[in-house]
Amino acid sequence: MSFLASLLVGCGATFADEGMWLLNHPPLERLKKDYGAQLPGGTLSKEWLLHLQQSSVRFNSGGSGSFVSAKGLVLTNHHVGADSLQKLGDASHNYYRDGFAAATLEDELRCSDLELNVLISIEDVTARIGAAVAPDLSPEDAFVARRAAMASIEKESLAATGLRSDVITLYQGAQYHLYRLKKYTDVRLVFAPEQQIAFFGGDADNFEFPRYNLDICFFRVYENGQPAVVPHHLAWSKQSVAQGELVFVSGHPGHTDRASTLRELTAMRDRQIPFTLGVLNRLEVLLGSFSGEGPEEARQAMGDLFGVQNGRKNREGILAGLLDPNTMARKSQAEQRLRQILAAQATAAGGPPRATPFEKIEQAEDTNAQVALRYNLLEAAVGFNSQYFGNARTILRIADEASKPSGERLREYRDSNRESLEQQLFSEEPIYDAFEAVKLADSLTFLAVSLGHEDPLVKRVLAGQSPRARAAQCVRGTTLGTRAVVAGQASRPDGRKALVAGGKSAVDASDDSMLSLAKIIDMESRSLRKVVETASEIKRQSHAEIAQAEFAAAGAAVYPDATFTLRLAFGTVKGYEQDGQRIPAITTFAGLFQRARAKRDTPPFNLPKRWLDLRPTLEQNEAFLRTPFNFACTADIIGGNSGSPVVSRQGELVGLIFDGNIQSLVLDIAYDDTQARAVSVDAAGIVAALRTVYASQAGAQRVVLEITPQQTAPSSTPR
Amino acid sequence: MSFLASLLVGCGATFADEGMWLLNHPPLERLKKDYGAQLPGGTLSKEWLLHLQQSSVRFNSGGSGSFVSAKGLVLTNHHVGADSLQKLGDASHNYYRDGFAAATLEDELRCSDLELNVLISIEDVTARIGAAVAPDLSPEDAFVARRAAMASIEKESLAATGLRSDVITLYQGAQYHLYRLKKYTDVRLVFAPEQQIAFFGGDADNFEFPRYNLDICFFRVYENGQPAVVPHHLAWSKQSVAQGELVFVSGHPGHTDRASTLRELTAMRDRQIPFTLGVLNRLEVLLGSFSGEGPEEARQAMGDLFGVQNGRKNREGILAGLLDPNTMARKSQAEQRLRQILAAQATAAGGPPRATPFEKIEQAEDTNAQVALRYNLLEAAVGFNSQYFGNARTILRIADEASKPSGERLREYRDSNRESLEQQLFSEEPIYDAFEAVKLADSLTFLAVSLGHEDPLVKRVLAGQSPRARAAQCVRGTTLGTRAVVAGQASRPDGRKALVAGGKSAVDASDDSMLSLAKIIDMESRSLRKVVETASEIKRQSHAEIAQAEFAAAGAAVYPDATFTLRLAFGTVKGYEQDGQRIPAITTFAGLFQRARAKRDTPPFNLPKRWLDLRPTLEQNEAFLRTPFNFACTADIIGGNSGSPVVSRQGELVGLIFDGNIQSLVLDIAYDDTQARAVSVDAAGIVAALRTVYASQAGAQRVVLEITPQQTAPSSTPR
Repeated sequence: MSFLASLLVGCGATFADEGMWLLNHPPLERLKKDYGAQLPGGTLSKEWLLHLQQSSVRFNSGGSGSFVSAKGLVLTNHHVGADSLQKLGDASHNYYRDGFAAATLEDELRCSDLELNVLISIEDVTARIGAAVAPDLSPEDAFVARRAAMASIEKESLAATGLRSDVITLYQGAQYHLYRLKKYTDVRLVFAPEQQIAFFGGDADNFEFPRYNLDICFFRVYENGQPAVVPHHLAWSKQSVAQGELVFVSGHPGHTDRASTLRELTAMRDRQIPFTLGVLNRLEVLLGSFSGEGPEEARQAMGDLFGVQNGRKNREGILAGLLDPNTMARKSQAEQRLRQILAAQATAAGGPPRATPFEKIEQAEDTNAQVALRYNLLEAAVGFNSQYFGNARTILRIADEASKPSGERLREYRDSNRESLEQQLFSEEPIYDAFEAVKLADSLTFLAVSLGHEDPLVKRVLAGQSPRARAAQCVRGTTLGTRAVVAGQASRPDGRKALVAGGKSAVDASDDSMLSLAKIIDMESRSLRKVVETASEIKRQSHAEIAQAEFAAAGAAVYPDATFTLRLAFGTVKGYEQDGQRIPAITTFAGLFQRARAKRDTPPFNLPKRWLDLRPTLEQNEAFLRTPFNFACTADIIGGNSGSPVVSRQGELVGLIFDGNIQSLVLDIAYDDTQARAVSVDAAGIVAALRTVYASQAGAQRVVLEITPQQTAPSSTPR
Repeated sequence: MSFLASLLVGCGATFADEGMWLLNHPPLERLKKDYGAQLPGGTLSKEWLLHLQQSSVRFNSGGSGSFVSAKGLVLTNHHVGADSLQKLGDASHNYYRDGFAAATLEDELRCSDLELNVLISIEDVTARIGAAVAPDLSPEDAFVARRAAMASIEKESLAATGLRSDVITLYQGAQYHLYRLKKYTDVRLVFAPEQQIAFFGGDADNFEFPRYNLDICFFRVYENGQPAVVPHHLAWSKQSVAQGELVFVSGHPGHTDRASTLRELTAMRDRQIPFTLGVLNRLEVLLGSFSGEGPEEARQAMGDLFGVQNGRKNREGILAGLLDPNTMARKSQAEQRLRQILAAQATAAGGPPRATPFEKIEQAEDTNAQVALRYNLLEAAVGFNSQYFGNARTILRIADEASKPSGERLREYRDSNRESLEQQLFSEEPIYDAFEAVKLADSLTFLAVSLGHEDPLVKRVLAGQSPRARAAQCVRGTTLGTRAVVAGQASRPDGRKALVAGGKSAVDASDDSMLSLAKIIDMESRSLRKVVETASEIKRQSHAEIAQAEFAAAGAAVYPDATFTLRLAFGTVKGYEQDGQRIPAITTFAGLFQRARAKRDTPPFNLPKRWLDLRPTLEQNEAFLRTPFNFACTADIIGGNSGSPVVSRQGELVGLIFDGNIQSLVLDIAYDDTQARAVSVDAAGIVAALRTVYASQAGAQRVVLEITPQQTAPSSTPR
């Protein structure tokens, strides 16, 4: 990225392949200007965009995907499916590690708490929200008024359309859009490869490139017990991507901080990320240690462990960016420019001097800093790490919120979200008591150590016991979850539905141990949340003010920070230089075998048995060896984009996002295309692997026929 | 432990098998009283004690051992030898993982920085130290006077005897003893088994029982290039231990906090251990992640990783004790009693009221709390995690301290310690630059995050670069270590000896990058050390006062807190109850195979190839299967005791301490024999394994012949 461009990052003016664009505001002008020669007529047409939009799928558990057949077949990453793979297993089935292939439709396994969403329409409701929030309201009242307006728009839309309806806050509060989503809750597992090839190189290669990962997983959505017939799905490209090719990514980037002020960035650098890294390091050690107790323990902890390692490497990457004097200097210059624009606007408007939005954000950050530790431990439940506790608190709050109008409730308890909330709460995935006790004991220890043993709340929480003893007691004494059956132990009733049905009186009367724990902290936890929500309202108003100034000054199309809603990114298939070495954009299966040998087939660079057994044969197969496996491109992505389809100008599937390189982690705060790259599995590589390595698996061949109905011969030769 | 006993813990009155006794004050009365019937005449005689004392060996790297042949053969743990095993290896030899066996004397491998000590004599120098420190000196001056007196006694003794001479502070400062030690610096590796059997069960089983670990390693000390002829060594018992048998442990417990006041314990609980755990968690994640990059990286990080995991589990165990309301209540009652004794003595003595030692300790703790973070980051070098940095600082300080009289120098730079210091500084074990850069980058990041990016010292340390860039630069630009040869990179000179020889002017003129880093922080680091040393002097005087009161009131024999000097413990071979289950005292090889199968031979419960190949045969060998492998006893041990010999009443070797169970970790602050157990490898189990499993290894058979010269038949049958 040139120095000029870097000066302007975060100011609305975008260069190169920057941007996570709204589907209703695609970057048409920019693309015509930069890529006009490459664009066929249909690309980015209304129909092209709608087709891509409705072929895209959001995994509510935190990832993206796409329809790849008319019968509701969904392609995503193995690591997006990991949670389901892990939960569907038991002591004798480790689908996460060993993979899964449903030979017939009947063999597809239903996931008990997965919700998939497809974006149907977008409506701008900024004016309606604005009208509901009078400009003279205090931040507390403004927050309440805004929340009520959002809930009422959502409720009305749900009633009118039957679709999940979410009002999304964009540009930190400068715009509000109503997203209507079709929901699929009957989602079944179709195919997953072995974790060892999906995540070849493990934590060591995570966020690195070159890569050699078959990070894929197929699900299918059902309606009324039958495969859903979906109106849009992506055709599988007959050709692999080529170096220099323009590609598009349609997915759900989770969260970015590009509009953050310097003060917000230093708070991330000095307080938030260090705290989070401390928690993640602690958890990684705990989960690693629990995994070491045996293969079944390792299976139970696998999903959490991957998430924690991934999160840790991610935060380290962002922190490295924040500790890089160049990045911070660019941010500082950009902010200087915005401050000047605002000052000029204020001078032009006249009137008495008032606090600038930057100053208001600083005050809000001060407030956050004061309550952050307790907020994280209590409301974010870092001190109460147990699925049972999560269920207990949800049940407690459903009962407490029930008497309020939908718009006045804590936002996740609004009427329009009830179905999704219950889908999670009533999950029937088994919970393992020994694992819960270890996690809860560790987090209660962290609570006691962080707040001090003499803290009155800590004393009430521990009730005169050591954290270990108290955790064991709370896990033993709860019925709020599907307890995994342990040999030699009696099974227990599941108290969740009765308590929710019984409402407040039932919840008040219950002496369930985990519910009692939730009751102990809920008053303080709610009041901390209120403080943080009020600070966030102040920040929202201030950011909206900054964004408006930016719109007015820049006059150019801008995109909002990521919000885990559908966005369109674009970029070029392109390598980069690192430590003086040229890294090519595309890897092949030949590279996979080379890397495994270079690392002496030692974990995490060992191939699954199926691949190892076939290696001598595969190494004779020149066409297979040359097939593209993974590739890098400059598209602007971030966490949440995992599983996003990569499509060609023709709108055909050419790849599947599964990672970004280590240099891409800084994209959280600023775009850069010098080295930052999105990393994808090549669509041709997927088909080649399924056809060749998984040739003996009926379930894999069923998938191949479904995704390439028109293709009769293998298409593993790159152009 | 009975409630009565528990009330008195830490007050000098001891019960059951408590105590880490001084070799010159063995617990004769207590043993006669409790075990009189079991004691043959010779046991604990002067000769018996001297033989045990001079058969015992201290590993200066942090462990214990014993002579087991007249030709200087030393028995210790695999994990005590780990550092040497790791350092002797290279990219094509992984002795730590694969083990080692020297078929002949000539094959024994010399360790480049190992120093072994044997305690020759003890002299009480309390009076001489007391005379040198006038009672009216300020704490600063008292510290300096005491340090000078200690250095001068040591220097005088070294000159007179040629022996390493260390003045040891006992009873927190109530007594000072001069220890004279014979030093061995030519130490060679003789035999080690595979890490997988030495540490079967890995981190999961570490600090647990039942156990099945062949945690052994044999070294040999040399003098003048020949095996040293040692005057004392332990005979290998012909019989295994029996349930209920009285045994003795002679070793070097590293550190305990039993005399700590409540205020010191809460500081451990609320500040020190949480900080340390944060650092250890961070390091464990970093080392685990580095290890994941490949087998060679894993080999380089193995030793550090084991140490960090071990330290983490240890701190967690102590913290669990400190968070246990019962333990703290006992401590509180004990302190109450001591406060009453002191108050009664003060009343009896008359005079104006003055600060109690407890109050003075509180003030010193306040001081420590204020400087702890910076002290840990700078002087304890938590912010500068690199072997190169350690060397650089040692070189800088040797030059700076040279102009002062020995007694006025920082303690480790006194004349009498110079040889040991150089043994470490000039180690020729290879240093791996990529590993150093990763560790230094991580610790510099921690430094910046902990002190804030705007801290003036942080700014000077980072010199306008990101931590990653700065670390890479410092590692590239130093010559202060034996750089491992990397293919394709030119080898570099080693600047250590020239700089030490060149003295202050050479050091001042040097622009070595790591030396420059050390220079940046040394002034502040030294001043922080001075604050901490002064606080420790106040604590020392106060603890001495408490101890004197205790001596006067209790009148009974007491033992001092552990000081990594030779101590005698005793106990009974004994199982315990846990969660309602009876855990037998002794495990067998049959149990090893059962556990591996129960865990499906999955790491860390997988057997090394040699064991796996032989398993079918071994499982037919009833005598082998019944042989005791590991055992638990009530002896009072702690970290540092690893590798200690366990001897019978006859003074023969029956076992080898390698661990304590999880309940034993609380021994750091209070003895308990309800569940706390020391864990040993059975001596008969060692011989059985060497004869049977390692039958084909000439090096193993050479060891067997040397340790059991008188035995012709296998002795693997337990009594």
